[in-house]
Amino acid sequence: MIYRRQVHESEILTIDVKPGWKKGTKITFSDKGNELPNQLPADLVFIIDEKPHDFYKRDGNDLIVNQRVSLAEALVGTRINLVTLDGRDLSLPVTDVINPGYELVVSREGMPITKEPGNRGDLKIKFEVMFPTKLTPEQREELKRALVGVK
Amino acid sequence: MIYRRQVHESEILTIDVKPGWKKGTKITFSDKGNELPNQLPADLVFIIDEKPHDFYKRDGNDLIVNQRVSLAEALVGTRINLVTLDGRDLSLPVTDVINPGYELVVSREGMPITKEPGNRGDLKIKFEVMFPTKLTPEQREELKRALVGVK
Repeated sequence: MIYRRQVHESEILTIDVKPGWKKGTKITFSDKGNELPNQLPADLVFIIDEKPHDFYKRDGNDLIVNQRVSLAEALVGTRINLVTLDGRDLSLPVTDVINPGYELVVSREGMPITKEPGNRGDLKIKFEVMFPTKLTPEQREELKRALVGVK
Repeated sequence: MIYRRQVHESEILTIDVKPGWKKGTKITFSDKGNELPNQLPADLVFIIDEKPHDFYKRDGNDLIVNQRVSLAEALVGTRINLVTLDGRDLSLPVTDVINPGYELVVSREGMPITKEPGNRGDLKIKFEVMFPTKLTPEQREELKRALVGVK
């Protein structure tokens, strides 16, 4: 009688993660799964998951970032400074009035699109306007004057 | 052989709708449903549905109303005038700064509570702050001055 011994083998597999791969992307290594006597070896499948980022949220190929601005910045203009995921500084002047819910779309500053090398989704900046919590009677009067005739 | 004739009967049933009845309330008239020979008469069941109101939305015992205010009103104060569902005039001074999403709760101005006669839910006023769409350079300067030091 011949006995077959089961041996544990180890092998290093390398996954070359492509920019823009989405959560749920499957990478299959054929025949690298578990092997049992008298059975074909199984496939080994890795499924990509995403770690959340502190500032950016992913929405398909787009990136979304929430930006708080003061009421003064919202009304008289401001400049938004961001560091992109690949470490570049973005400096965006905003001259429009920023109303609550205002969204600034920066083309091609989103996620790389795997199937379109060199192309990217959009970066969407969603604004939250922080109102003053308290105003002195003098500040109220000044604002009242400043907002007369404003539509 | 005796023939029985089926006769169509009509009868007026009155439903006394109580203040505060909710959508889905069932009113059953026993034995007033369809009658067939040799069968017990069925029950007749009415189920209350609600017509939507132009301004007020119902949320359980509470009423919700959306109120738009200008930026000036949001900052320097305003007075909200509403007509209640039972036709009374409500005039509410608002002296707090109204930030976007601000909610003013007026106790006992909501829907009557059927099981607690005389008691009512709350009225919740949800504010939307309308920002100016355009500002002249002079208006910007004035606002900038008025908002210096405002927190």
